[in-house]
Amino acid sequence: MTIRELQDTLAHFARERDRVQFHTPKNLAMALTGETGEVLELFRWLTPEQSNALTSQPEGARALRHESADVFAYLLGLADVTGIDLEEALAERIELNRHRYPVVLAYGCAEKYTNLGE
Amino acid sequence: MTIRELQDTLAHFARERDRVQFHTPKNLAMALTGETGEVLELFRWLTPEQSNALTSQPEGARALRHESADVFAYLLGLADVTGIDLEEALAERIELNRHRYPVVLAYGCAEKYTNLGE
Amino acid sequence: MTIRELQDTLAHFARERDRVQFHTPKNLAMALTGETGEVLELFRWLTPEQSNALTSQPEGARALRHESADVFAYLLGLADVTGIDLEEALAERIELNRHRYPVVLAYGCAEKYTNLGE
Amino acid sequence: MTIRELQDTLAHFARERDRVQFHTPKNLAMALTGETGEVLELFRWLTPEQSNALTSQPEGARALRHESADVFAYLLGLADVTGIDLEEALAERIELNRHRYPVVLAYGCAEKYTNLGE
Repeated sequence: MTIRELQDTLAHFARERDRVQFHTPKNLAMALTGETGEVLELFRWLTPEQSNALTSQPEGARALRHESADVFAYLLGLADVTGIDLEEALAERIELNRHRYPVVLAYGCAEKYTNLGE
Repeated sequence: MTIRELQDTLAHFARERDRVQFHTPKNLAMALTGETGEVLELFRWLTPEQSNALTSQPEGARALRHESADVFAYLLGLADVTGIDLEEALAERIELNRHRYPVVLAYGCAEKYTNLGE
Repeated sequence: MTIRELQDTLAHFARERDRVQFHTPKNLAMALTGETGEVLELFRWLTPEQSNALTSQPEGARALRHESADVFAYLLGLADVTGIDLEEALAERIELNRHRYPVVLAYGCAEKYTNLGE
Repeated sequence: MTIRELQDTLAHFARERDRVQFHTPKNLAMALTGETGEVLELFRWLTPEQSNALTSQPEGARALRHESADVFAYLLGLADVTGIDLEEALAERIELNRHRYPVVLAYGCAEKYTNLGE
């Protein structure tokens, strides 16, 4: 399915249950962040190595799949009600970051672009 | 582009800059939530009505487009490194929620499924 | 109890259970944000008026009290392991904000200080 | 200063600037989480060891002190407008966790209490 089709499915689900009334951009932003908080909770006490291995166990994989889907659902919903084309927005962002993080300066570095080349 | 193609573009960007080393699932979960925090900051003081209108102004639309793209990028990255198929995960989640939130019980209601029908 | 005493109680609790090993600043920052995500989930679908009324019901009050305590516990823990004096940090922040948000410019306004007086 | 005095100072600051209107519990919950997102951003790409060392550099210490103060300020504000006694809530929570996490079962373990003793 395309992003548009995923959004239509979700919007239909909300309309059927008369939940569109709750889906202001503000509320969807809160729901989105609430769900990323649940993703965090899966990882908070893990070492980097344990975090790499989380999805090699069925229970960990299932939990992350569910929470990621919830994040994705609210991100799609937020973009839908605010008229943002996620794919276009991402392409624009990547293009901007190509300029902000030139390979020669950003190589192997996790600094924010405002600190590069110092 | 498909979700797979978006992920490949992002993975290429990270490899070119030798940043794959930072992209453990744990770190990507943190980055994802950091970005949803920035989405929240756009909305925190707005009334529901003002939140509806945010993207009708060019500056608000641009800010939300950028922050949403950052959220999307890290969600795609997290799914990529953990082997989660976001589209499949979402379809699975919608199917589950159809059962958890039957129209007749959930209509017009924002309660969690565990509280429905009480 | 003072903030220091609250921190000592929490540190003792963690030591007794051999959990200090999990309490890196990074992990505590994740736990802190995970808990604020749970606070968000209490409010996400509420109107401003409903959010004002949440704690007038025993169940809502209890839920928010628990989640706020969890946030507070991890904030105290993070400050403890990183050597930050929360009270001093807050006093410093308030002083800074007095300059950033002079009453005459900031009155009735939710803008960030960088946008004041435009 | 006591927690009550810190809250009074913050409330006075908000009243002077006519900002109480923005401080619904819902909005304060968003602001709180937005600030924990900024704490996360300081740590997201760090190894556990680097996260331990963040505050040994003046710049890192200052950044975390500021962000922690912002989190603390909104937590105090949220508790204030909702009538929650943070110290009491924390004491109650610690007492509950003593029962949920008995030393003999929870020792050296980061599992949630619902998974202990399995």
